[in-house]
Amino acid sequence: MVLEIKLALLQMKVVDDKSANIEQAKRMISAASRKGADLVILPEMFNCPYETAKFSQYAELKDDSLTLKSLASICRNNKVHCVAGSIPEISKGKIYNTSFFFDDKGKILGFHRKMHLFDIDVPGEIYFKESDVLSAGNKVTVIDTDLGKIGIAICYDLRFPELARLMTLKGACLLVYPGAFNLTTGPVHWKTLLRTRAIDNQVFVAAASPARDHEASYVAYGHSLVSNPWGDVIVEAGVKEEILYVDLNLEDEEKIRTELPLLKNRRNDIYCLIDKPQKE
Amino acid sequence: MVLEIKLALLQMKVVDDKSANIEQAKRMISAASRKGADLVILPEMFNCPYETAKFSQYAELKDDSLTLKSLASICRNNKVHCVAGSIPEISKGKIYNTSFFFDDKGKILGFHRKMHLFDIDVPGEIYFKESDVLSAGNKVTVIDTDLGKIGIAICYDLRFPELARLMTLKGACLLVYPGAFNLTTGPVHWKTLLRTRAIDNQVFVAAASPARDHEASYVAYGHSLVSNPWGDVIVEAGVKEEILYVDLNLEDEEKIRTELPLLKNRRNDIYCLIDKPQKE
Repeated sequence: MVLEIKLALLQMKVVDDKSANIEQAKRMISAASRKGADLVILPEMFNCPYETAKFSQYAELKDDSLTLKSLASICRNNKVHCVAGSIPEISKGKIYNTSFFFDDKGKILGFHRKMHLFDIDVPGEIYFKESDVLSAGNKVTVIDTDLGKIGIAICYDLRFPELARLMTLKGACLLVYPGAFNLTTGPVHWKTLLRTRAIDNQVFVAAASPARDHEASYVAYGHSLVSNPWGDVIVEAGVKEEILYVDLNLEDEEKIRTELPLLKNRRNDIYCLIDKPQKE
Repeated sequence: MVLEIKLALLQMKVVDDKSANIEQAKRMISAASRKGADLVILPEMFNCPYETAKFSQYAELKDDSLTLKSLASICRNNKVHCVAGSIPEISKGKIYNTSFFFDDKGKILGFHRKMHLFDIDVPGEIYFKESDVLSAGNKVTVIDTDLGKIGIAICYDLRFPELARLMTLKGACLLVYPGAFNLTTGPVHWKTLLRTRAIDNQVFVAAASPARDHEASYVAYGHSLVSNPWGDVIVEAGVKEEILYVDLNLEDEEKIRTELPLLKNRRNDIYCLIDKPQKE
């Protein structure tokens, strides 16, 4: 495990054109790599508008995916690791919201399929039902990389503290959440939840959102950010397309865990969190 | 269960004189009752300075406690329910940090013994080690009252999302945290954690701190507050002694749980949180 990681959050603007999205992702990854990023993070559904009707239309098979091939090549050429936000993935007739992890040789080391599907109905404000078209992943994801163990979860997954805790207990030193909160939940919940997952688990937490686009049917909140293990937001985007850079020093986690031994103080004798991955 | 509760948070200033603290608690409870409070909440260690050396000196047996007798009488006379912050309780030679719940007839309906003991050592900022002198409680506490089911946990217990979740799963419609964060952790963590427990569990969360006293050896943060289930802070104190009033409408929880069905969307098939109370 390295102790210092230069992270780049790619808050890209997603359009209704897969090729254009892929090209823009490639441009942003190259730019971040030129600035020395070790790990780049794309937002949720970076190659597809966040609309249930589009997911099946944009969905790709893992082994025959223009998006994934393009990313493999750009990661290899730029020697950069990548949490590839998420894309609609089709597998055995089911569509998932899936985040792939590429190492700096362009190899897929693992992937996370969104475990919690986002269904919301706040009258007069927002209606969205992922479960109409998507299937849920069935496992907690922590990927063993050259940079350390990285936990990946997607957007609505953030709302479930059990998942952040399990990723931490599996050794993740960085939790990454590609996510697209909206203008109803974003202002109240996004930063608060991300900071709390960092504070509770004494880990770095990074979240990448698409840029805000008021023309889109679902308007993402933006505000990609990184919280350190103490809960300080050490970098935060606005609402427009941009790349954010931040250096993480993983020794900070050890220091905080010594000063305030939260994970050691858990009462695992009283409450016990069990992890039971299911078949997909 | 009633649907509307008038709550009073008693952010009292604690001094190094048990009788004086009891008298002040009684005055504040009476005052809150005159304003129509159904439930009053005292802060952590409201009858004793927050110093490990004082805990044994101030500790009382449940069945022979001046503090508890005084509170029983004031609750009965004023027909008000009370989460009695916490006091050092001695039982079978062990000292606990315990919160008692009184109904409006002055009867103790239950109690919570702090489950997680607070040990912190941030060099140059703060050192405190509860585990030097206190024993930990061994159960999750939800008390069935005329006002509904109320979960109680104390201060450092707040840092463990498992506990808030278990109180919620046991039916608590209000989580109460008497707590004394300090000037290192308070500004960064207090409000964020309280709001997140409310957001994650879609419950009201109320927290009562002692008033800030720069003469004390441990300086409490103050900022007693209530968050609604959406995570909005609906009332928040400053740092001085004061009483805060707020009306809770428990129907808000049902509404939010319908709009955004978080608790229904938990993946209990993947992660399973088990509750195993232990003997004390």
